[in-house]
Amino acid sequence: MLDHAGTSTPAPVFDADSWVCPLPLRDSPTIVMAHGGGGAMSGELIEHLFLPAFGAAADAALGDAAVVEVGAARLAFSTDSFVVKPLVFPGGTIGELAVNGTVNDLAMAGAQPLVLSTAFILEEGTDLADIARVAEAMGAAAVTAGVKLVTGDTKVVDSGHGDGIFVNTAGIGLVPAGVDIRPERARPGDVVLVSGDIGVHGVAVMSCREGLEFGTTVRSDTAALNGLVAAILETGADVHMLRDPTRGGVAATLNEIAKAAHVGVRLDERALPIPDAVRDACGLLGLDPLYVANEGKAIAFVAAEDADRALAAMRAHPLGARACAIGVCVDEHPGMVVARTALGGTRVVDLPAGEQLPRIC
Amino acid sequence: MLDHAGTSTPAPVFDADSWVCPLPLRDSPTIVMAHGGGGAMSGELIEHLFLPAFGAAADAALGDAAVVEVGAARLAFSTDSFVVKPLVFPGGTIGELAVNGTVNDLAMAGAQPLVLSTAFILEEGTDLADIARVAEAMGAAAVTAGVKLVTGDTKVVDSGHGDGIFVNTAGIGLVPAGVDIRPERARPGDVVLVSGDIGVHGVAVMSCREGLEFGTTVRSDTAALNGLVAAILETGADVHMLRDPTRGGVAATLNEIAKAAHVGVRLDERALPIPDAVRDACGLLGLDPLYVANEGKAIAFVAAEDADRALAAMRAHPLGARACAIGVCVDEHPGMVVARTALGGTRVVDLPAGEQLPRIC
Repeated sequence: MLDHAGTSTPAPVFDADSWVCPLPLRDSPTIVMAHGGGGAMSGELIEHLFLPAFGAAADAALGDAAVVEVGAARLAFSTDSFVVKPLVFPGGTIGELAVNGTVNDLAMAGAQPLVLSTAFILEEGTDLADIARVAEAMGAAAVTAGVKLVTGDTKVVDSGHGDGIFVNTAGIGLVPAGVDIRPERARPGDVVLVSGDIGVHGVAVMSCREGLEFGTTVRSDTAALNGLVAAILETGADVHMLRDPTRGGVAATLNEIAKAAHVGVRLDERALPIPDAVRDACGLLGLDPLYVANEGKAIAFVAAEDADRALAAMRAHPLGARACAIGVCVDEHPGMVVARTALGGTRVVDLPAGEQLPRIC
Repeated sequence: MLDHAGTSTPAPVFDADSWVCPLPLRDSPTIVMAHGGGGAMSGELIEHLFLPAFGAAADAALGDAAVVEVGAARLAFSTDSFVVKPLVFPGGTIGELAVNGTVNDLAMAGAQPLVLSTAFILEEGTDLADIARVAEAMGAAAVTAGVKLVTGDTKVVDSGHGDGIFVNTAGIGLVPAGVDIRPERARPGDVVLVSGDIGVHGVAVMSCREGLEFGTTVRSDTAALNGLVAAILETGADVHMLRDPTRGGVAATLNEIAKAAHVGVRLDERALPIPDAVRDACGLLGLDPLYVANEGKAIAFVAAEDADRALAAMRAHPLGARACAIGVCVDEHPGMVVARTALGGTRVVDLPAGEQLPRIC
């Protein structure tokens, strides 16, 4: 078995009865929303609870996708549960998110996605027509992405113990020979590319969130990125790392990569592609677009000499028309992301503790 | 792509707006608990809602496990969400169920399980120590089954919109060359074997269900069956079909196989291995042990000439010591299961509408 993280497996010594919450978690002996936000507290939950508890069974750092060798093939394997609220938002539903989210996790491992599983946890009393609408969205998204829905499961929980529709998808993809994409390959000198406008999905969902409604023309960018990734890889560019910046936005993604690869990232804020409508909404809500979720964007770390080729391939693809370079990978401040501001200063772009608004995907 | 069911893909014509609930579902325009019970209503939800809505994206009948060809390998792929209540019950927790359930779905396709994903939907306010206990159970179960936990996801939902811990696992297994196990292969003459006592898991969970507590010595039979299956297959016995009779019990499993293979099944009630404690509990609750869930038992349809060999292999395995033959596959009454009663009469063993007690796994 191969894994992305290359971390050593913790020894299988764990006893739930004598388990004491380790320091980073100790402030809260119970689950809080931020544990599901994809930021620092999600990472702590994995590092200090799941990995020690799983013990010898954990073969990887439980990242977005694992790469496992089966016979001569390298398979990418990934899973995500979706709990977005509301179920329908401008530009999509939980159904598109569920298919595109797992397709993208596979694509970010450089894999060609093949098949998905679909597992529903439905709340008693949910309208069948609402479920049909979500399932139809899943079918259409799967056709667009070129994947098949091959196995599934449905559970029902009593009214008041769920929230309409939760969907889990898991997926299998095939990693082509020669492709080796993982955080540890990011290195000083790499150019950091983004495939288009950021902050779009998060603003679209917030705009229709109960108690928070505001007028905006922003629609979710949910999309399957496997075609875009294939187009980049076809150029032969040496792509070191790919990631879709979902929960926690571009800031969380860059921090994770910086920490995993022990490199620094230097962003140029003026280069960030932020639509006016996203900037306006973030101003209204007091949010930073760097921390707002995306569901159809890729961040790529590419060897400097290949960056122009990769960028041209992105721009030639319908989902990458507004792609641009937003920064570079440096050997200073390893593990940290620093942004040069529009006014010429610099600021640290921290890993967020959680998501600014929970249940964004 | 290969699929277990061999059904043709429905045409991709679906419009959620004009969707009218088809007859079998029309009595209820909303989800009821029985839709998650693994019986007739679960089947209707798949046949009349999910498959038409998924359209061209659905490549199989979304059964317990799909078999997909990737290069030269045949992979089994399966997923299950677990919502059992309570989270801890005599003999196990939701953690063992989540690992063993997916391991068993893979094993019932004749596959050697390799890797699992783990995805949690946690409710705000859940004790971290409870999560640690479940995760530890998953780790230990995975070590016992010989599978690795390689990728994962954690989402958090606000208090009152979940129920402590929901777990989804998906898994990949490798189907050895020459193994071809699917419902359609069941044929008249096959001997129906069960690997041990039935009704145990369901009674264990019911005994501690809120409002239903009763004293019993019964503990859940949750176990990974991949070793047992490998032992059977190693004999070279021609195994046509395997299934673990979980939700809906032995009755639901045999009905599904009878319908898929267009064969009849004739059970001998006197041969059913039912422990006294299960019989007593079922008498108390007015339940039929044939319909009570199991989490560590296999049903096998084996060619008549190989049945003794397969049975001997089961009995030689620690998880199959009480294995026995419980019936035969016949060409009469195709699609139906008929039992010869202890008094010498016969009765039809129907497919249940749902599970007798919801959230049993």
